[in-house]
Amino acid sequence: MDKITIAHGSGGKMTHELIKNVFFKHFDNEVLNNTEDSAVVDVSSKQIAFTTDSFVVKPIFSPGGDIGKIAICGTVNDIAVSGAIVKYISCGFIIEAGFDISELEKIVISMAKTAKEAGVKIVAGDTKVVDNKEADGIFINTSGIGVFDNEYRLGVKNIKPGDKIIISGTLGDHGIAVLSKRKHLEFESHIQSDCAPLNNMVLSVAKVAGEYLKFMRDPTRGGLATTLNEIVSPDTFGITIDEQYIPVNEAVKGACELLGLDPLYIANEGKVIIIVDPSVEKKVLDKLKQHKYGKDAVTIGIVTQEDAGKVLLKTRYGVKRILDMLTAEQLPRIC
Amino acid sequence: MDKITIAHGSGGKMTHELIKNVFFKHFDNEVLNNTEDSAVVDVSSKQIAFTTDSFVVKPIFSPGGDIGKIAICGTVNDIAVSGAIVKYISCGFIIEAGFDISELEKIVISMAKTAKEAGVKIVAGDTKVVDNKEADGIFINTSGIGVFDNEYRLGVKNIKPGDKIIISGTLGDHGIAVLSKRKHLEFESHIQSDCAPLNNMVLSVAKVAGEYLKFMRDPTRGGLATTLNEIVSPDTFGITIDEQYIPVNEAVKGACELLGLDPLYIANEGKVIIIVDPSVEKKVLDKLKQHKYGKDAVTIGIVTQEDAGKVLLKTRYGVKRILDMLTAEQLPRIC
Repeated sequence: MDKITIAHGSGGKMTHELIKNVFFKHFDNEVLNNTEDSAVVDVSSKQIAFTTDSFVVKPIFSPGGDIGKIAICGTVNDIAVSGAIVKYISCGFIIEAGFDISELEKIVISMAKTAKEAGVKIVAGDTKVVDNKEADGIFINTSGIGVFDNEYRLGVKNIKPGDKIIISGTLGDHGIAVLSKRKHLEFESHIQSDCAPLNNMVLSVAKVAGEYLKFMRDPTRGGLATTLNEIVSPDTFGITIDEQYIPVNEAVKGACELLGLDPLYIANEGKVIIIVDPSVEKKVLDKLKQHKYGKDAVTIGIVTQEDAGKVLLKTRYGVKRILDMLTAEQLPRIC
Repeated sequence: MDKITIAHGSGGKMTHELIKNVFFKHFDNEVLNNTEDSAVVDVSSKQIAFTTDSFVVKPIFSPGGDIGKIAICGTVNDIAVSGAIVKYISCGFIIEAGFDISELEKIVISMAKTAKEAGVKIVAGDTKVVDNKEADGIFINTSGIGVFDNEYRLGVKNIKPGDKIIISGTLGDHGIAVLSKRKHLEFESHIQSDCAPLNNMVLSVAKVAGEYLKFMRDPTRGGLATTLNEIVSPDTFGITIDEQYIPVNEAVKGACELLGLDPLYIANEGKVIIIVDPSVEKKVLDKLKQHKYGKDAVTIGIVTQEDAGKVLLKTRYGVKRILDMLTAEQLPRIC
């Protein structure tokens, strides 16, 4: 089987052949094929959204999501939650010498397929090769650009006490899927990563909610609890979520109990937290449920004036406890 | 000394502290400090330039350039050679557990200083940590965005036989500086990397040359010879360069002879190839020489109708030989 060698990262002939035979073959579009140092792309708005993320997930192939799919979804979702329309993606590969070219091609095909579903173009790329044992298989960076079709910007600044917290579906699927593959665990039911490009769903929510949509964020590393802690403001508001409404798949729940993990801290790659004015809560839930990635959407909490700066969990027994940020690493290299 | 741990990559408390105490401290600007998943930035043109590059240079500190400076310059220069005004940079860090936080801070300070010189803002970032031996110290991805202040686009399509090939200065300094540090070689004179942000110089060239400026590219990995091979077109033109005009520092020349390396294939991080209509050749050279990064600028060759698709080197003895692309890797992990 053909392997990646140091010469594939030289910038010379072998780099050009790899780019042509693997990357261009699957990412095919007129901007990328131009092979200039920069992609020159059209933007239709005066402001753009710009984001970057590196992916080091291990193993690189898990049920429901390989590193390529995750790398596209992660950046697509980061742009989408800003309210922007995702347009362009770049990808930077760091590959360990000895990596199978056929595995690379599988990853690239998965990236191309996910980009197609999301309706985004991969317009710029870079490939570096490091020696054996200087990296662990493959790392992928994706950066992305989105444009806006209106002047309204989502943000923490829009959030007010009384706003509702909606989650688009079940929690913990991605982290547990990766972990089960890594540890060769077999659970009774097959657990799949939720990894998905959410941009089309999220855009349809923005359309129905207008300026009553306050804020969105995808709870990846650190899970729901950490992400909510990033949102709360010590000066103006807290968040209380209600345990009984938080959706967790039975198989994920079982795996978490077995492994001593809390699904509220586990990474998701296909979920979004949506904070809305109560007046559009039902409309937003209805819209989410029409979408394949939002069918389990549910309101899980509310923005509160009291307990500013804190995230509280109302347990099934009616007790409130503080949900802190993740302090140590539960699951390294989960994305 | 404080070390990077797996928990610094968790997305939780330690990640947030690292971001605040190291990245935000030095990259300080209102967009980055906003801490949304995407940076929302202004763009003034309907088209933008977008590029990405990962940096795996080893060792991470070399004379004249550390990985942080190189990571900023590399992306700034890739945008600049498209003729765009460089505006925004993202950075994605992949760090090996056990890496010194003080070394990370040195790198970050170098990035901030270089970004300031270039006049660009670092507006988005990401940090991942992998276990000991799963990476080699630190890898950095930078992506960048530039805007255009006119409708004219540089590109290979503009190049015509008779156009002049200018190089902004001496070749091979970066590669030899990194190699000498890596191999603990001591040369008679101290060799420094040429690593530099070229955007301001390049912009001043674009201003004086207007549409007589045809194309620019920075000869990084693979060196001048490989980059010229990327430019020539099998259908329309070739390039002939004249060995006697190609500028190489004496110390670099000596090191290359000693090591059996060819400076035409060695990576540069602060040089640009500029292809212009002969009518502006002098004006462009004068402008380059006014700039600290262009004082050794010189015309090294010409675009030819004959030998289409080939790069020829006219040697000191008057013989012409084909300069091919780099075929194997001369110097791994040079950028």
